[in-house]
Amino acid sequence: MTTRSDAPPRSARREATRQRILAAASQAFAERGFHGTSVEDVCDRAGFTRGAFYSNFASRDELVVELVAQRTARLRDRVRELSEEDDLTPRELLHGVLTLWSDQPGERQQWLLLQTELMLHAIRDPEAGAAWREVVARGHQETAATLEGYLRRHGIRLPVSSLELARLLFAAFQGGALQHLLDPAQVGPDDLENHLVAVLEAALTRDDDTDGTASPA
Amino acid sequence: MTTRSDAPPRSARREATRQRILAAASQAFAERGFHGTSVEDVCDRAGFTRGAFYSNFASRDELVVELVAQRTARLRDRVRELSEEDDLTPRELLHGVLTLWSDQPGERQQWLLLQTELMLHAIRDPEAGAAWREVVARGHQETAATLEGYLRRHGIRLPVSSLELARLLFAAFQGGALQHLLDPAQVGPDDLENHLVAVLEAALTRDDDTDGTASPA
Repeated sequence: MTTRSDAPPRSARREATRQRILAAASQAFAERGFHGTSVEDVCDRAGFTRGAFYSNFASRDELVVELVAQRTARLRDRVRELSEEDDLTPRELLHGVLTLWSDQPGERQQWLLLQTELMLHAIRDPEAGAAWREVVARGHQETAATLEGYLRRHGIRLPVSSLELARLLFAAFQGGALQHLLDPAQVGPDDLENHLVAVLEAALTRDDDTDGTASPA
Repeated sequence: MTTRSDAPPRSARREATRQRILAAASQAFAERGFHGTSVEDVCDRAGFTRGAFYSNFASRDELVVELVAQRTARLRDRVRELSEEDDLTPRELLHGVLTLWSDQPGERQQWLLLQTELMLHAIRDPEAGAAWREVVARGHQETAATLEGYLRRHGIRLPVSSLELARLLFAAFQGGALQHLLDPAQVGPDDLENHLVAVLEAALTRDDDTDGTASPA
């Protein structure tokens, strides 16, 4: 096996190779799922050899976790910006998040499907899945911090903590994507998220309320 | 329980074979998951030939859908009985359901894991998964009917329909099982279900309230 130890790590060319592999993998995983996509499939699609693949990623696991973690981080940053716009109601915030998630119809569901496959993989094979467990835990914590800031700024109280709320929202996103993909005639693409927000809106109290002053509807 | 006289009679011996295959499959799927369990694995465990298997089930798909559908139906009947006990609060009803679900710790999560694997299989392979789509749709509808009865008897109103509530509860059960199995140190086995019920309790109004009479806290 030829090594290119003269190339500096992450040169522009190396980074371009890496990004092409990630882009090809993104398409392949969306179309065929985690279990249906081999390293060979990704290489064929990207036009690279297996050697090029393994000089960039230790394994398919490492590739897919990086892919989803990158996308999750990008989404998280955009949601944080959105949540800091002070005049959004919870429903407007949800709508903004759903719009931010993807520009293409169905893309969100495909990403959530891939995330679910990764969860199952991590559950069945805890050693291989340790990286994914960390990504999920960090995602819940960072979402909770964003929610905490939003709720505080708006003087909103809920009967669950921000971390518990983040986990419930993630379950609604994940369950909503699965139920919609399984039976699109029965369950619309944003149904579960909207139902959960409707329940949350009815469950919340505002700091104004505790002072005995009714807030305007 | 009504017997279906239109079903073809099965000999006792044939039925015993069928039940032994189902029991062996139940253990195998719980341990190794849907993708990790072949027809051969089930036959080895049950001590039958592949011929005996295929004279009872057309495919692994048919076997696993029947297995989960049978268990879901048994659970549904017990939940319906429970929900008709008039003095249970929503939280007591949830606790009853979680207790009914299984006698063994972790069994509920394993069943929900298998159900999630079936959902993914049905999404990726819609033809093979059509039977599972029907089981899920019927499960949501039957759960909604049970919830509708409970809410009416208790004069409880929610900002979502009974069917929407059933889907939210299913997402909390499913997401809760996955989050717990992925990271048991962070997420307890009943956490998500309890958080959703806490939010639902805060969101509900009672028929008493709409008459302008405050109900006791």
